[in-house]
Amino acid sequence: MGQSSSARLKRMSSMIELINELWYLKRDLVSDDYDRALYRLAQEVDGRMRIHEYPTGEPCWTWRVPEKWTCQEAYLETLDGRRLIDVANHPLHVVSYSIPFEGIVSRQALLEHLHVHPHLRQAIPFVFKYYQRDWGLCTTQELRETLSEQNYRVVIRTSFEPGLLKVGEVVIPGESEESFALVAHLCHPAMVNDDLSGVVVGLEVARALLAGAKPHYTYRLLILPETIGSVAYLSHNEALIPNMAGGLFLEMLGNDSPHALQGSFQPGSQADRCLTTALRGLDTQGYTAPYRTVINNDERQFNAPGVRVPMLSISRVERRDSPTWPYPEYHSSLDTPAIISAERLEASKQLVLGLLQAWENNQYAVNNFKGEIFCSGYGIWVDYRLNPEGHRRLFEIMERCDGEHTIADIASELEIPFQAVQEITHTLNEKGLVRYSREPHSTRPARMQSK
Amino acid sequence: MGQSSSARLKRMSSMIELINELWYLKRDLVSDDYDRALYRLAQEVDGRMRIHEYPTGEPCWTWRVPEKWTCQEAYLETLDGRRLIDVANHPLHVVSYSIPFEGIVSRQALLEHLHVHPHLRQAIPFVFKYYQRDWGLCTTQELRETLSEQNYRVVIRTSFEPGLLKVGEVVIPGESEESFALVAHLCHPAMVNDDLSGVVVGLEVARALLAGAKPHYTYRLLILPETIGSVAYLSHNEALIPNMAGGLFLEMLGNDSPHALQGSFQPGSQADRCLTTALRGLDTQGYTAPYRTVINNDERQFNAPGVRVPMLSISRVERRDSPTWPYPEYHSSLDTPAIISAERLEASKQLVLGLLQAWENNQYAVNNFKGEIFCSGYGIWVDYRLNPEGHRRLFEIMERCDGEHTIADIASELEIPFQAVQEITHTLNEKGLVRYSREPHSTRPARMQSK
Amino acid sequence: MGQSSSARLKRMSSMIELINELWYLKRDLVSDDYDRALYRLAQEVDGRMRIHEYPTGEPCWTWRVPEKWTCQEAYLETLDGRRLIDVANHPLHVVSYSIPFEGIVSRQALLEHLHVHPHLRQAIPFVFKYYQRDWGLCTTQELRETLSEQNYRVVIRTSFEPGLLKVGEVVIPGESEESFALVAHLCHPAMVNDDLSGVVVGLEVARALLAGAKPHYTYRLLILPETIGSVAYLSHNEALIPNMAGGLFLEMLGNDSPHALQGSFQPGSQADRCLTTALRGLDTQGYTAPYRTVINNDERQFNAPGVRVPMLSISRVERRDSPTWPYPEYHSSLDTPAIISAERLEASKQLVLGLLQAWENNQYAVNNFKGEIFCSGYGIWVDYRLNPEGHRRLFEIMERCDGEHTIADIASELEIPFQAVQEITHTLNEKGLVRYSREPHSTRPARMQSK
Repeated sequence: MGQSSSARLKRMSSMIELINELWYLKRDLVSDDYDRALYRLAQEVDGRMRIHEYPTGEPCWTWRVPEKWTCQEAYLETLDGRRLIDVANHPLHVVSYSIPFEGIVSRQALLEHLHVHPHLRQAIPFVFKYYQRDWGLCTTQELRETLSEQNYRVVIRTSFEPGLLKVGEVVIPGESEESFALVAHLCHPAMVNDDLSGVVVGLEVARALLAGAKPHYTYRLLILPETIGSVAYLSHNEALIPNMAGGLFLEMLGNDSPHALQGSFQPGSQADRCLTTALRGLDTQGYTAPYRTVINNDERQFNAPGVRVPMLSISRVERRDSPTWPYPEYHSSLDTPAIISAERLEASKQLVLGLLQAWENNQYAVNNFKGEIFCSGYGIWVDYRLNPEGHRRLFEIMERCDGEHTIADIASELEIPFQAVQEITHTLNEKGLVRYSREPHSTRPARMQSK
Repeated sequence: MGQSSSARLKRMSSMIELINELWYLKRDLVSDDYDRALYRLAQEVDGRMRIHEYPTGEPCWTWRVPEKWTCQEAYLETLDGRRLIDVANHPLHVVSYSIPFEGIVSRQALLEHLHVHPHLRQAIPFVFKYYQRDWGLCTTQELRETLSEQNYRVVIRTSFEPGLLKVGEVVIPGESEESFALVAHLCHPAMVNDDLSGVVVGLEVARALLAGAKPHYTYRLLILPETIGSVAYLSHNEALIPNMAGGLFLEMLGNDSPHALQGSFQPGSQADRCLTTALRGLDTQGYTAPYRTVINNDERQFNAPGVRVPMLSISRVERRDSPTWPYPEYHSSLDTPAIISAERLEASKQLVLGLLQAWENNQYAVNNFKGEIFCSGYGIWVDYRLNPEGHRRLFEIMERCDGEHTIADIASELEIPFQAVQEITHTLNEKGLVRYSREPHSTRPARMQSK
Repeated sequence: MGQSSSARLKRMSSMIELINELWYLKRDLVSDDYDRALYRLAQEVDGRMRIHEYPTGEPCWTWRVPEKWTCQEAYLETLDGRRLIDVANHPLHVVSYSIPFEGIVSRQALLEHLHVHPHLRQAIPFVFKYYQRDWGLCTTQELRETLSEQNYRVVIRTSFEPGLLKVGEVVIPGESEESFALVAHLCHPAMVNDDLSGVVVGLEVARALLAGAKPHYTYRLLILPETIGSVAYLSHNEALIPNMAGGLFLEMLGNDSPHALQGSFQPGSQADRCLTTALRGLDTQGYTAPYRTVINNDERQFNAPGVRVPMLSISRVERRDSPTWPYPEYHSSLDTPAIISAERLEASKQLVLGLLQAWENNQYAVNNFKGEIFCSGYGIWVDYRLNPEGHRRLFEIMERCDGEHTIADIASELEIPFQAVQEITHTLNEKGLVRYSREPHSTRPARMQSK
């Protein structure tokens, strides 16, 4: 997992530079700005990104690819022509995928189509109505409160036309066809933490993997529009699904909250055990929570029936009971480069690489020994009088090296970090006492079970 | 489960009418009055009741059918001929299956054979000594306290003769030979809530099933003397046992206590999961409790070794720690029509039909979809901003429709009513997104399990 | 398990007599005194002890047999010849397996090699450095505090020579080759409770087994030096391992603490279930605790990877949070005959025999009956009005006699003593209602599992 030599890939922009360059684009699901952003990102991986295209109307399991949507113009005026809201001032002023509308509407009728943020008075909310076929504008609570006239003029000029939904895929081939998916979505216009932060971290991780030694697993970074992008990709690549051993969704990685690792639908999977125990060793501030209890994203499509890939998610999210969950500026015009930092993006990138390193290393520990090891003889004795905790841990790990437990299984059982187990198993491996295996290989003597 | 058209069966008597007609009969295990009651009940199902006869002495697994027992006369007199207790005044004045006895006994000797109720001062208790071969009379605490003479005269004229133990069976044939048993006992003389209330509810349920469309399962109502009736029937119908997928014992359904659904010996069975989750949706006052913790009846024979039918029981029973558990008038002469109501019998009948409806409908939900469903496209979207609970539930149920979970499995896992799950799966079924299957049919992609 | 006729074996010495005779010997791992003690013990079993010899340097899995160690002389003197410490006064004054050393050392240098007990001021500690190749003396805190001179003279004359590690094995052949191991170590010089108490109890248990009727299981008492003795034996008898169905390590059985039964690495094993539920019926003061939480000994080698024999341990040990855990005089010169009693040794012997009796009797209870048993007819009825607890227990046990539960399984499930279950199953067995089987034999009717 060569983090060291990522310089071999031509470096063009830092994560922060990419964010500054791309964040304000109107990256709606299928849109010109979405495409611009994706092609720009592709440049960062030196031709290694393949772009899948799915035309409007294309069936994707129970879904269909939506039209390309463009907003030419959208504003609200008083009848005497005073312009109050204008999408030219901020892309979020129009509901994403709003249908076109033009006319004089009463104040009352307007308010039904004019969205504000539930608690941020000065923010424009992010509202999308991809499939509801409604029109709408968005503004601040402050502006809405000033609306006292009887009637207003609304102009929303949008077009729905055949287009191509695009999914960017960077494959890092491994020794095995078994794969691990990294997924981030790119379709949140003019916002940063959600969702561009996950995209740039994913890209940096992919760059590091590409630059490193060939891994065991094949890794696959997918950059896509939320939900429909995952469904489009999976439904057109069904043959890959049986080989997907795990995955991680990336999002909200620049703001100032602790890392939250959300488990998959299959909490006993190796992916869950490995990543949750590895987090303990990588970020003591981080926390874990079950499926669907941190935040919902594309991992839902991967975990869903008929797919059932154990995909976790990593994000920086406040605890669920916080009044500003998942973070204060969520889905609003305040989600700007100001709320993220390069340090936090870098820390998240390192965390993800650390999780993947654990994933690579998670194998069955098979004992070449029987009985307890002669620790003094192998120079690995820990004196219980001096370090009782270290002594106990050495033996607790050693006695689970039996070809039936992976490193993650041992760490889960002992409720300790993956890395603490790996440190011991690697020592035992170096001494020739333990070998690693991708398959279970029980060394338990066959014993009659009769009474 | 056609509750609607039960009129197709000739109606003769309401549940209350049957109770008023039959309750005071001396329905001892094998007795003329038991037979009278059973034949009268048979008239209510229009020739659909088959009556099985097992002669006295017939071996039934480890049991033998007892003799027919008749009490011609039983009384207690002072030596000067003042009659204090007389079975002619109430059938419970004699111990059921008392042996004959006639003689002068001391007050002390009498008291050893004279039973009173432990806490009801004015009630005659129900005492039975089917296999102990003892004589006995029963009376009120009040009367016993007046007994101050040295000696008394006891006359108990009973006879034990060869007879026929009778089990009434009403079969409602289903599409499948897999069956579900409804069981109630009829052998509690001159009492109502225990046990006649369960019998009449069972009969009404059978009438409703007979009048309805052909069900999937075969249903079998058994009316029998407690314990020995079940053993006699099961031991003579062993070939049916492997097809018995579940069952429900019925009793104490007229009094004023909440419904108690007692689980079977196999709490993970589909019968247990289905009925306990269905109760949640049918009776919010009802409660569930494990096997043997509510009240013991014939379900014990069905759950026993070598039979192992998961049979639950439904009754109206006070919580176990109540001083008047299971209900105040239990096993006494105060268990009369006065303590039950037609409304409660009807409510219990509807509850049982509701439980059976869930049982009929409990199938594996097999996804015709992969990934998450395009809810908007199918018109089943629940807006998480307006109804977060409904949104979450829709997805939690949808993601468990995988051919490995029955409706009851999903409801158990989510700790919600069976009906709440069924509402969603039925919608998905109507949309062609889910199909039902009586067999599991996993749709999980085969995945390498190596590390 | 004929405890009665143990007189058939020639009796020579009581447990206390053996302890008094052998405790002060310098029973280091491989040493002349160890051998003396073992040969003396062998006399007590009338030629039934086989002594295995493993020469110095012999590979034993990852271990090698150490040298025989002898201490000719060891003392500490002031430079003017005042002798402060002398191994001639107590064997614990020298570190077991200390290397030889002779010279003038500064007070500071001396203190690094002079060990005292952590909290007993007047005790000499037991210190061993089998594999560290260091020199050392041991003394009391009191003496150490008087050391105020600049320099001292140290003389340690020890030798390391080729020798034979010895393991004593007493086999009690059973009907089956499946075996149960009793293990105690003998290598703690000049101490009693740890470890000689376990050895003499084990020997008495073996004598009782030898004198009794032929058991079902083969029993095997092993007396050995700690750890290396177990590894030597197991590595040279690998063919026996698959037949080892369980085991019990014995130690610390003379002092005044409650019995502690420590579970094995496999807490669901029959050995664990049987012994832990049997303890409940044998010693109401005793307690159980998971693997590695009471005290660590040779059971570790048996439970280890590649061996995986479920070996429990029994000892008299204070609760883990006691400041004097495992007992005040542990690993010190105060562990003398004064802290043990013949009564406690005898009670421990009886306890171990009781545990083994349960182990012998632990079989699957297979029902010859179906349904519930006609208890009155078989004379085993318990009147629920008189003894509701006894009634309930009778039925709870009876309904688990299904060929899928051992006696230990039933006792574990009901959280009651093994003996309470056995009492019922034995009654049922006598009545021909239950048969015992060493193999599971399910009597559950095959049932369709479809919905």
